[in-house]
Amino acid sequence: MTNPDNMKPVEATDVESAAEKTSEPTPASGTSTITQRWKREDLIKKASPITRGICLLFSLIAFLIMVSNKHGYGRNFNDYEEYRYVLAISIISTLYTAWQTFAHFSKREIFDRRTSILVDFSGDQIVAYLLISAASSAIPLTNIFREGQDNIFTDSAASAISMAIFAFIALALSALFSGYKLSTHSFI
Amino acid sequence: MTNPDNMKPVEATDVESAAEKTSEPTPASGTSTITQRWKREDLIKKASPITRGICLLFSLIAFLIMVSNKHGYGRNFNDYEEYRYVLAISIISTLYTAWQTFAHFSKREIFDRRTSILVDFSGDQIVAYLLISAASSAIPLTNIFREGQDNIFTDSAASAISMAIFAFIALALSALFSGYKLSTHSFI
Repeated sequence: MTNPDNMKPVEATDVESAAEKTSEPTPASGTSTITQRWKREDLIKKASPITRGICLLFSLIAFLIMVSNKHGYGRNFNDYEEYRYVLAISIISTLYTAWQTFAHFSKREIFDRRTSILVDFSGDQIVAYLLISAASSAIPLTNIFREGQDNIFTDSAASAISMAIFAFIALALSALFSGYKLSTHSFI
Repeated sequence: MTNPDNMKPVEATDVESAAEKTSEPTPASGTSTITQRWKREDLIKKASPITRGICLLFSLIAFLIMVSNKHGYGRNFNDYEEYRYVLAISIISTLYTAWQTFAHFSKREIFDRRTSILVDFSGDQIVAYLLISAASSAIPLTNIFREGQDNIFTDSAASAISMAIFAFIALALSALFSGYKLSTHSFI
């Protein structure tokens, strides 16, 4: 046990320098963390409309490719329920993201702040579930066709499915951003 | 235009009664809205672990039914990639919800408050996407089998898929509750 008597007496200057080191963060580092947060929040705020715009684009392409996928007997998307399912969901996804994009640019607040973020959040999730469900149900059928032969019908189906998957990824990201936006709004 | 002179002069008592009606909400109604909110928040807080517990149950049943779905040549789940996909995802879902339920009851805080809600929120969503994707990919194949004949193999496959869909619904609800929980925590 060190003998407290022969310890060096604590000088006033030591105390002050220790205080300075710990108590006030230098003004520069304080503001930089706040600006960093603002930048991050600003980025997140822009991310949702951008990802929904990307989803709108991919769902529209998926719709156009699938609806034009008619190449004679046995090569008509209408003959297979999985492809009809992909077409139906790409229409729903196109309408949903078009409405969201319109509401974003027209700055029209249909609900109050919190409800509109909750509607965004659940809407993104539900449509994302539908997109992944439609794409997943059509993949096995397309694999079977492509084992047999590769033609314009199977290639169009495959590309429409890939567009649906890209639309799903964009909307799933948008759902995560909506979740983050929920966490930065204090609604208590 | 009504002539302001012959309008009834506003009495002091009218002003007071009007003020009483609007300004202070009766104390009873103030506290009841707060208790209502606490009750709702308490319900939401309990909802997530309950829905994950339900999902654990359904994914475990889906796993058990599918893994035991071997009934001779051509009636073995292992011969079909869609059924292997359902089996793999039900294992992942069982492990994820088991970990979440364990973490909930052992009160072990692996992350800080906000990160743990964000991990819950994204984890629920990703596993829910996998569940709906696996179930959707196996449905068309099972429909084709059941057009031909109904036997223990197709019935087992159909019940495993239904369990996977129930597990998905439970986890999708849990993801919505996690989103709501995010919105009631001010993390600014």
